[in-house]
Formats: sequence, C-alpha cells, structure tokens
Amino acid sequence: MKITIYDTTLRDGTQGEGMSLSLDDKLKLAKRLDQFGIHYIEGGWPGSNPKDMEFFKEVKKLKLKHAKIAAFGSTRRANIKVTQDDNLAKILETKTEAATIFGKTWDFHVKEVLKTTPKENLAMIEESVAYLKSKGLEVIYDAEHFFDGYKANPKYAVETLRAAEKGGASYLVLCDTNGGTLPTEVFDFITKIKKEVKTPLGIHCHNDCNLGVANSIAAIQAGAGQVQGTINGYGERCGNANLTSVIPVLVLKMGIPVMPQEKMKELTELSRYVTEVCNMPLERNQPFVGKSAFAHKGGVHVNAMVKNARTYEHIDPKLVGNATRFLVSELSGKSNVLVKAKELSLDMDSESPETRKILEKVRELENQGYQFEAAEASFDLLMRRMMGKEKKFFELMEAHVHDELLKDGKVNSNATVKLRINGVVEHTAAEGDGPVNALDKALRKALIKFFPVVEKIHLIDFKVRVINESAGTAGRVRVFITFQDEKDTWTTVGVSENIIEASWQALVEAVEYKLLKGEKI
Amino acid sequence: MKITIYDTTLRDGTQGEGMSLSLDDKLKLAKRLDQFGIHYIEGGWPGSNPKDMEFFKEVKKLKLKHAKIAAFGSTRRANIKVTQDDNLAKILETKTEAATIFGKTWDFHVKEVLKTTPKENLAMIEESVAYLKSKGLEVIYDAEHFFDGYKANPKYAVETLRAAEKGGASYLVLCDTNGGTLPTEVFDFITKIKKEVKTPLGIHCHNDCNLGVANSIAAIQAGAGQVQGTINGYGERCGNANLTSVIPVLVLKMGIPVMPQEKMKELTELSRYVTEVCNMPLERNQPFVGKSAFAHKGGVHVNAMVKNARTYEHIDPKLVGNATRFLVSELSGKSNVLVKAKELSLDMDSESPETRKILEKVRELENQGYQFEAAEASFDLLMRRMMGKEKKFFELMEAHVHDELLKDGKVNSNATVKLRINGVVEHTAAEGDGPVNALDKALRKALIKFFPVVEKIHLIDFKVRVINESAGTAGRVRVFITFQDEKDTWTTVGVSENIIEASWQALVEAVEYKLLKGEKI
Repeated sequence: MKITIYDTTLRDGTQGEGMSLSLDDKLKLAKRLDQFGIHYIEGGWPGSNPKDMEFFKEVKKLKLKHAKIAAFGSTRRANIKVTQDDNLAKILETKTEAATIFGKTWDFHVKEVLKTTPKENLAMIEESVAYLKSKGLEVIYDAEHFFDGYKANPKYAVETLRAAEKGGASYLVLCDTNGGTLPTEVFDFITKIKKEVKTPLGIHCHNDCNLGVANSIAAIQAGAGQVQGTINGYGERCGNANLTSVIPVLVLKMGIPVMPQEKMKELTELSRYVTEVCNMPLERNQPFVGKSAFAHKGGVHVNAMVKNARTYEHIDPKLVGNATRFLVSELSGKSNVLVKAKELSLDMDSESPETRKILEKVRELENQGYQFEAAEASFDLLMRRMMGKEKKFFELMEAHVHDELLKDGKVNSNATVKLRINGVVEHTAAEGDGPVNALDKALRKALIKFFPVVEKIHLIDFKVRVINESAGTAGRVRVFITFQDEKDTWTTVGVSENIIEASWQALVEAVEYKLLKGEKI
Repeated sequence: MKITIYDTTLRDGTQGEGMSLSLDDKLKLAKRLDQFGIHYIEGGWPGSNPKDMEFFKEVKKLKLKHAKIAAFGSTRRANIKVTQDDNLAKILETKTEAATIFGKTWDFHVKEVLKTTPKENLAMIEESVAYLKSKGLEVIYDAEHFFDGYKANPKYAVETLRAAEKGGASYLVLCDTNGGTLPTEVFDFITKIKKEVKTPLGIHCHNDCNLGVANSIAAIQAGAGQVQGTINGYGERCGNANLTSVIPVLVLKMGIPVMPQEKMKELTELSRYVTEVCNMPLERNQPFVGKSAFAHKGGVHVNAMVKNARTYEHIDPKLVGNATRFLVSELSGKSNVLVKAKELSLDMDSESPETRKILEKVRELENQGYQFEAAEASFDLLMRRMMGKEKKFFELMEAHVHDELLKDGKVNSNATVKLRINGVVEHTAAEGDGPVNALDKALRKALIKFFPVVEKIHLIDFKVRVINESAGTAGRVRVFITFQDEKDTWTTVGVSENIIEASWQALVEAVEYKLLKGEKI
C-alpha cells in the first residue's frame, strides 16, 4: 500500500498559539508544500472562516502539480438533512477534489458536546460522507478522539468507523485529538481495527505527551496508510505530529518511500521557509532541520567529529539539506577554535598560545552576556582581533539620537554621527523609523564616500533580549543584528546596559565584517 | 525493581546551544532537583572543567536530602594504569558518592577515536569501574553509542557491558548517543540484553529523531531500571530525553511510581525555574509544562471546553501544576471572548453586538502586528475600551529621549515627559540605562504624586521583534513589556515602525493596567 502524507499546517497548524496566516501566506505555503511532494494539503475550514473560502478560490489558479487540496468540516448537525447543512454546503462551494470531515467517536462527546443520541451520530457520519461522495469528492473521515473513544466504548467506536466506511470514505483517520495515547497503544489499536474494517486507516496525532512523532511511526508500523501532521509541528496546545520529523524517519530511517529520498534535501529549507511565512520563532533544536540539529559544542565531540563525521551524527546532515556546525563557547575545547581558525584561513595550531587566549576571551565575554554561537560574524572579528589581524576602518567620535513623541501621535527619530575615516572627519545626520534605523542610516551615509559597498547591505533582523531579567529596563540587554547583501547574511552581537549602545556595537561590527569580506576578494 | 531518575541537566544539558551555567546557577539547580525528588544528579565533568570541581565542593554544603550527586568522566586512557589517569583522579578528588563513567561500545569508535584495540578498550572499562568502586563509590556505566555499536558488532557490544559488570557497575546505561534509534529497536535490544547481563539496565536518549521521550518509555517497558535525561530536554544538537515529559508519562499515564504523584504538581514550576536559571527561551508548546500546553484557541474547542474540560485535555492540567488557558485571536469564536469577559466580570453574552465588535477589532489589530495571546493585560484594556469602560488616568503632551555615544565609550540616555493628569501639567526628566528605562523613570516620576502605587511596580522583561523582517530596522517592531508588583506579573504589547513609540505604548498600558487594578480593590 502506498503511504500518503497529509499536511494540515494551513488548518490545524493555525490553531497554535501565535500562529496567524493571511490569505497570501496560505497560498505561498500551499505552493511550496505541493513542490515538496505532499499528497494532500488541508486548506482550511470554509464553514468557520471566510478567509478560507477565498483560499479555495485562489489556490485553483496556482495549478498545483502534485497535491490534492482538501476542505475541512464537520459531519452535518443533528436532526437535519444533509442538504440543509450550511457547513457541508460550504465544502461543496469550494469545488475542491477532496473533503475531510470529522465526526465523533467517543460516546461521551456525543452526549456532552453534540447533545444527541449515539444512533443519530452514526447517521450523521454515514450520510455526510455519502453526500459529499455523491457530489464527486474524495472523502477522508477523521475519527475525532478515536483512541479515547475506543478505550471508553470500543464497540461504539468501531460502529462510527463502519458508518464512515459505508458512506464511502477513502481513509478512516484515527485521531489522538487530546494527545494522551502511548505508542504501544496506538500500535495495538491499529492492529485490532485493521481486522474490523477494509478501508485504509490514517493517523492524526498531537504532541501533548511529546510522543506525536513516535505515535505516527507506530501507526505506520501497524499498517496505517496515511499520516497527518504539520510542518514544524505547529498546532494547538503542544502541536500536531511534526512532519519534518515524521517524513525523514519514514524515508531515511525506515526505508518507506513516502517521497523520493532526493526530496529530503529540501527539508531544511522547507522548514525554514514555513517558519518565516508563519513568522514563528525558529526552533533551533528541532530534529533534522533545526540550526542546532547538527551543532557540536563539547570539546570531546568536536575532537572526534574532526576525525570522522559519523562519530556523533546519526545521518549525514546533507541528506536533509542541513549542515554540521561547530560552536564556540566557554565549553569549547581547542578543537572548536581550530576548526573556526581553519574556516577563516588563520594560521593556528593546538599548541599556539593564541588558541588558549581566544578561549579565555570567549569565556570572559560570555560571562558579560555576549553569545557567539548565534553571532558568527562577531566571532570572526574577535578571532582576527586576538590574532592581531584586526583592521579599523573608522573611528567613532560621537553619535547622538533624538526621539520625540508628540501629542498628535507623531513620532520622529533623528541621529547624528561623527566619525574619523582615514584622517577625515565626517559628520552626518539622518532621520529614521526609530533610533537604530536612524543611526544605521547616518553611519552608512558617513561611510559611503569611502566604502561604496555599504550601499548594498541592509539590516534584515533585529532582536533584543534582557539578560538579567530581574533588573528590568535597567538590566543588561543583548542585541543581535542580521545584515544581508546580494548573496549572504551575517549576524553580530552587542551587549550593554543601554540598548542604543548595544545596537551600535552590533551595527559597527556588521559593517566592519562586510568591509573585511570586501578586502579579501 | 525501583526505577530511578538520573538528571544530567548540569552536564549534558550544558552542551546545548545557548546554554551556559555559572557555579551559582548549578548549585541553585541541584538544590531544586533534590527537592523535587530526582534520584541522581550528574554535577559535571571534573576532568574537563575547573568550574565543575568547585561545584562538587560547594554542593556538599547544601546537605541535599534525596539525590546522590554523580561526577562524570571517561574510562582511563589507553595503555596506562588506572592510578595514573588524571580524569579518574579528578573524579576521586570530588569525594562524591557516585561516579558515572562512559566507555566505548562501538568498535568503530574504538579504532577511529580512541585509536586503540578492542581488547584494551575492554580492560579500560573493567579496570576503571573496578578502581572507582574499590574507593567506595557507586559506579554507573554509560555505554556510549550502545545501539549503533550493537547494530555494527553485537558480540563486542555485549562484551563491553560484561566488562563493566565485572568491574562492579550498579547500572549499565545504554546510550543512544547520536539519537538515531527507533522505539521498536530500543525495546528489542533491551529485551535481548536483559538476557545477557544481570546488572540493572539504564537508558540515555537524545532527541535527534524527535523520539527521545518515546525511546525512554520503550526502554522502561522493556525492563530498564533507570532513565537519564534533562529538564526541558536541554542538550547538544536536538537535546536529551526531556524529563519533564518522561516523568509525567511514567507516573500519570503508566502508573509507574518513579516519584509520588503529589510531586507532579511541582513539575510546571520546576520547568520554568530551570528555564529562568538557564536563561533559555520559554518553550511555550512544551508538553505538560509549557504555557500553551493546555491553551485552547479554536472556537469549537473552546465551546466544548466550556461544557466539559475533559473534552480537549488529556489530563487535568492541575495534576502537573499547569492551567487551562483560553486564547483570544482572529480565530476565536464568540466563546473565547465570553470566557474572557467573565474573567473580567464584564456583562456580555453571545448575542451582544460588542462580542462581534471585539472580535473584529482583534483581527484588525493582529493584522497590524499586535498579538494578544501573550499580552493579556493589553487585551483586558482593549475589552474595557470596546465596552466603554475605559478610564484615562493621564494624557501625553509630549516626550523626548536623547541618547549620546561618546568617544571614550560613555553613553547617556535622558528623557523628558510632559503629561496632563487631572488637569495638571507635569513635566519631568530622568536619566536611564537606555531610552526605555529613561522614559519609564520619567513617566513614573510624573505620576507618583497622583498615584503613589507606581513606585511599587517595575519592569522585569522587555522583548523586541521585527515583524516584517525584510524591511530591516525600518520594519515594524513589536515590543512586549512585562511588569511586576509584589504579587503579580502582567504583559502588554506595543507595535510601531519606531521602537521608542512601540515601547511607549506598552509602558503606558502596563501602568494603566496597574492603576485599574488598584481602582477595583
């Protein structure tokens, strides 16, 4: 049996805290998921959200090559005809190829939430599936709370599945809606249910016990034919089963070709694209695709990795489009510094006194609040400085920023910067959207005559964090600034009690890093 | 067999990207882990880090009641006597009750990393364990890369375990060091190994396939007697097995009393305490203990939860010291707004036109970049405003901030604030560590005569994020500000293209929220 991947990032994913997608975001994501080779993309719930209806109209124009778009909805309401049900009518209005409808498995929910009889619930399931099917749609049936329902009343739970089967569903998807089931239970129940129905089974897990991926894998091992989940595991509460883990485990670890192995090379980029479109924080330690997923810090590990990369990596990170990283921190051994030195073509070996000196400096600065793991450009500059290979392109004489908040809601920020560059004093002023923007503009205005390249770089990210939180606004802040040119991005760090000074440090290093790169070429 | 929990947050946890603990942090954590009832606490690697040696000296003064403190290290180096090995000598120098030493299981590592013979490796294991044991220590043996080693050469892998058993180890801990093993493999291998040795087995997993918790559970199901892991799953690459998931699964889901069920009520607080001491970002969607773990957003779910809390929660969140939350966002149905209205004692029902109006306003503001899920104080104020129950305590006339960066590295920030309060104009100035601190001080200085309570509140956290990253410093920024008084914390949000304005919005709302609270009492 071919196993299919069903993505619900656009629907169940948006139930996650902090997730919110515009119509344009949803279309971008659908296009990308299709390119990646996802088999089904759940686009939304047209009956609950007008934006979703618009999505179904627009997505047709994208002419997806691979994925079927599914509209989500519930079984008809109790005691009405299917033709009278708004929610089913809205699904038909989307004119998609597939519909996924969820129904109640658990008699407790039938009574408490639907407030109807177990018998009427069975009719609701069968009739709703049959109705959509009669209109030419493929119908996937999501058995909500299947595992809890089966534990409470196995006979009734199976009857609900049979009702969907009679209606003509293409998959009966067993949902661990509340996320409380263990992998061994999932395996047992699927094994049992396979004997009760003929329709292929699917699995839909949530991560409330940190077992969402394991439960999805257990279901496939027991013979399920479809996995539902979301990219990066987005979803309500603790999220849905994380497809960016489930898919590579199936393909690379278990040899189940849910998609070609070649495609796995796009996984990291896919994950980061989705993170960005969803404007969610990057989860550095996410398996397979996280920035830390193949990052080595302990001296012993780095030492062994230098000898042979297989020693501390379960797969070659290239298989999923990710890369090995060696981190520099106070825990670093000499090996980490030497690996970095090699990257920078600096002449250094484990006996060099500079190696020890650099390690000590890193420890000292990290104690002050700096972090170099995420600010590799600042670390490059630090290494050069410690090796006496620093180059000062300009010198600050003074800088001022003035912000004003006015009664009518207007706000202005102005900066002046006075630098000495090759013996020449440049004094510039600029207005900006905020003090850091104003400083950035004034700084580059002062430099542009001498270094025209600064015109081509721009700041793309700016993050601020209070380090010692108990001191509040008077606490020390750490600023990360990311710049971009035509083909590269780089991040620098600044630390101070004053956010303006920390930002200035990071701004200056970001510019210096670019100027140094230019020198090398 | 009693199952023991072995925490390695202080050692393996610190290998995680962004993790760095001072001596004082380590002592705080050890004390807290002991109170919680952890059986073993791995304190550090005295042979690799001088700070760790200090820890073992200081931790004795804490007089822990419950946990044994273990010192970590490797087997002796090749071709020397145990008495000549620095690393083992350092372990003895710590004078702890327990030592955990890791050795090589995988013949590939013996050759590639240790550069020695398989036979010498066996001697290194047995002699190192026996030596520490002869000095009165309990010795736990960590079989590094056990699962990969066993797959490559099962006979040799078992021999390494037998060497440790002969040496007198109290546990043989099977490590999935690279994190690439599946739960079914863990179960099978442990079942086989149990027949080969008599010593209790332990399990040490990493999360590289998102299966760290599942693998730990599978090992216990197969008969392992110890689980190693870290609080919040901190650790190198994708982290270690997350004990804040493993422990409640064992206790609450599987009925295995690794610690009393009552203790589970401290779990959420423990997790957040460790997050804070480690200064790591709060993982909102972390199972059991995350702020989103029991947070409901979809209208259908909230509606059902109001009828019966069991409908969409796998356990009662109180069991782990967590709480149900209802989120307000553009996906919210009327139920979410009504639940909030009830919390605020506002008179509103699902037919009120205000309910729809509030939902529309939330959607509009979220489109502009606001987020209310994490800024409940701002949402409270928004609801009051929409219900005509707003109260303006003061009015901004104008505010100015001036920052200067000087040649000698000095930096100054000064703010002036002009407000109208009850018809009186107050014009104040203050100096601060940064522009927001200066504004905060000047604002409260202006208010204090009228509202003395503002003296007792202070800002404890300040977060900034660029929303539309592509526009860089000129992009829109969202600022979250958290204030605290003697017994409460509250968060507000501000959005603007100018960070100063966004901060000002959040500052003003934080103060207004406090003043309103005072009015109610």
